Amino acid sequence: MKLATFEIEAQTGPVQRIGAVDESSDSHAAGEATLVDLTAAYAAALAAEGEPAPRRLAEAHVPPEMVAFLARGDRAIDDAREALAYAAETDAERGPGGATLRYEPGEYELRAPLPRPNSLRDFMAIEEHVQNSMDGDVPDVWYDLPVYYKGNPDSVVDPGETVQWPAYSDLMDYELEIAAVIGKRGRDIPADEADEHIAGYTVFNDFSARDIQGEEMGGRLGPAKGKDFANGLGPYLVPREDVDVLAAPMTARVNGDVWSEGTVDEMYHSFGDIVEHLSQSETLYPGDVIGSGTVGEGCGLELRQFLEDGDRVELAIEGIGTLEHTVLE
Amino acid sequence: MKLATFEIEAQTGPVQRIGAVDESSDSHAAGEATLVDLTAAYAAALAAEGEPAPRRLAEAHVPPEMVAFLARGDRAIDDAREALAYAAETDAERGPGGATLRYEPGEYELRAPLPRPNSLRDFMAIEEHVQNSMDGDVPDVWYDLPVYYKGNPDSVVDPGETVQWPAYSDLMDYELEIAAVIGKRGRDIPADEADEHIAGYTVFNDFSARDIQGEEMGGRLGPAKGKDFANGLGPYLVPREDVDVLAAPMTARVNGDVWSEGTVDEMYHSFGDIVEHLSQSETLYPGDVIGSGTVGEGCGLELRQFLEDGDRVELAIEGIGTLEHTVLE
Repeated sequence: MKLATFEIEAQTGPVQRIGAVDESSDSHAAGEATLVDLTAAYAAALAAEGEPAPRRLAEAHVPPEMVAFLARGDRAIDDAREALAYAAETDAERGPGGATLRYEPGEYELRAPLPRPNSLRDFMAIEEHVQNSMDGDVPDVWYDLPVYYKGNPDSVVDPGETVQWPAYSDLMDYELEIAAVIGKRGRDIPADEADEHIAGYTVFNDFSARDIQGEEMGGRLGPAKGKDFANGLGPYLVPREDVDVLAAPMTARVNGDVWSEGTVDEMYHSFGDIVEHLSQSETLYPGDVIGSGTVGEGCGLELRQFLEDGDRVELAIEGIGTLEHTVLE
Repeated sequence: MKLATFEIEAQTGPVQRIGAVDESSDSHAAGEATLVDLTAAYAAALAAEGEPAPRRLAEAHVPPEMVAFLARGDRAIDDAREALAYAAETDAERGPGGATLRYEPGEYELRAPLPRPNSLRDFMAIEEHVQNSMDGDVPDVWYDLPVYYKGNPDSVVDPGETVQWPAYSDLMDYELEIAAVIGKRGRDIPADEADEHIAGYTVFNDFSARDIQGEEMGGRLGPAKGKDFANGLGPYLVPREDVDVLAAPMTARVNGDVWSEGTVDEMYHSFGDIVEHLSQSETLYPGDVIGSGTVGEGCGLELRQFLEDGDRVELAIEGIGTLEHTVLE
C-alpha cells in the first residue's frame, strides 16, 4: 500500500485528504496514479454493511489528515487496507454524502505525505557517507551512539515542487535518504520493540546548502541555515510491512543521469537502535520523522559535484517511489 | 500584562485556557496570582456592549490556546488588554454562558505559557558564556553570524514541575535565558522590523545534561540528548511593550542561593539580528520560541558547580516572573 496526502480544489477552497494508490493504476508515479480517498472509501464500506452513521465513524477511524491518521498506529493501517480493498471491489464512484471515492491524475495535487511532520530528526548512520564527508576523520563518538540534528518541520516541500535556493548560498546539494515515520507514541522504547512504533517509510531529500552549513557548523551547534530551507518528503508513505527497507535499492538521478546508488543496509546504527537511543527520557509522537542519514556517495559533497540552476533531482527508492524536485538559483 | 496558560479540572475533564494576571492580586508569583480568563472576560465585555453572539466572537478574537491567540499578532494583545480592563471594572463573577471570569490560587494549575511551542530554537548570543564554555576559544564564525541549535518543543515542562533527570546523565545543569516568542508570521524579515513579529518574552531554563552533551557534540551535530528531555518556559509571557528586555535583571537561585546574575544587554547578536538571520528563506510562525543564549556565568558549567538531587532552581527575570523547578536524579 502506498499512502498519500493530496489536495483538491473544492468550490469552498482547497481541501486536504489522505489517499492510497489504486493498485490497478497504469502508473504509480507521483501525480500519475489514481488515488482512492481512504476516508470516503472507509465510509462507503461501512455504509455497505449497514452502518447508520458511516461518515462520522470514518472520520474517526481514518482521519483525513496524516498525523491524526498515524496516531491510531497499526489500526489505522488495517483500516486503510480495508478501505482500499472495498474501493477495488465496488464500481460506485461516490460514497455516503456524495463523497468522491477516486481521484484521477490531474484532479488532485500530490502533497508531501506529511506536509507538516510533528518533528524532523536526521541521523548520520551510514559510515561511508561520514567518512567521505569528514575526509576519513570519523570521530569515535560516531561509533558509540547515533548522532543527529533536528531539522525544520515547517519547511517540507511537496513532490514535484520547485526549490528556490536561498540567496545566501551557492553550493547546492541533495542527500539521498530514507525516513522512518513514527505512528505509535512511546518513550524508553527498546530496540526490539521499535518496529511497533514505526508506521512506515518515505523518501527523504535533505537539501543542503554546503557553504553556509560548513561555516555555521564551525560554531559548534548543529546545521541550521544549511538545511532548514527545504526538506523533500514523499511521494508516498509505505507501511513498514510493505517495503524491505534495508534491501530496497535507492538511486539519485540528476537530469536523468545516475549520481548515487545504494541501500541503507549499511546502516551502522539500525532504526531500532536509533529509536531506542532517541526515546530515552524523551517521548516520540505520531508524525515524528527520522532520517537514516545519507547513503554512501549519496550526495554531491561526496562526489565533488554540485547541483546547478534548473537541475532536476530525482530520488527513487524501490517500493516507495520517486521524489522529484527542480532547484532554482 | 502577564499572560498565562492554565488548566482547570472541569467535570468533563481537564480544560486549558489562557489568562492574564489580575493586577490587583496580592502576589503575581506563579500559582499565587488571581488569573482572569481572557476569553471569558472578552465575551463579557462584548455582551456588555450589546453583542448578541459574544462567546463565538470571543473565541475568535481571543482563542483560549496560546499559539492560536498569538497568531493574531498585536491585535490579540490589544484584545487581551481590553478583556483585562473590563474584568478590573466589573464585579460580576461570571460572563456569558456562565463562564467563570477569575480563578483564584488553588483553582487552577499553571502551565507553561506555550505548553507546545511551534518550534524551539536556542541561540548563543552572549560572548561571556561562549568564552567560559569554550575555555576562551571562541570560533570566528560566532562573531559573523548568530549560531543556534533547534530544541525539542515536545519536552516543555510547566512552572513548578519536577524534572526527572535522564538516567544516562550525571551532570545536571541549568541555563539562565530569556526567550522571545513569535506572534506575527513572516519571512525575510529585516532586523528593524523584527519587533513587529515578536509578541513577547518569557523566562527559559535550557536544562542541560553536560556529560552526554559534550559527548554527542563530538559527533559534529548540534546537541540533542543533552538538551531535549526538558525545557522550562514561563511562568508568564509578557508582551514586548511591557518589559525592557535588555535592561531586565536576571537571576538564578539554587535552593535560595544566588548562582547567576546578569542581563541580556550583553547580547552580541540582538534579537533583531537573530530574527533577520533566522527568517532568511525560512518562514517564522506564531509560537516559534527563540532563546537568547545563556547570560554570562548563567549556568553551572561556567561556575564549575552542578545541580544535585532535589535541588530547587529558580530563574527570575524582573517584569516577567520566577520560573521554578526541582530536579530529581
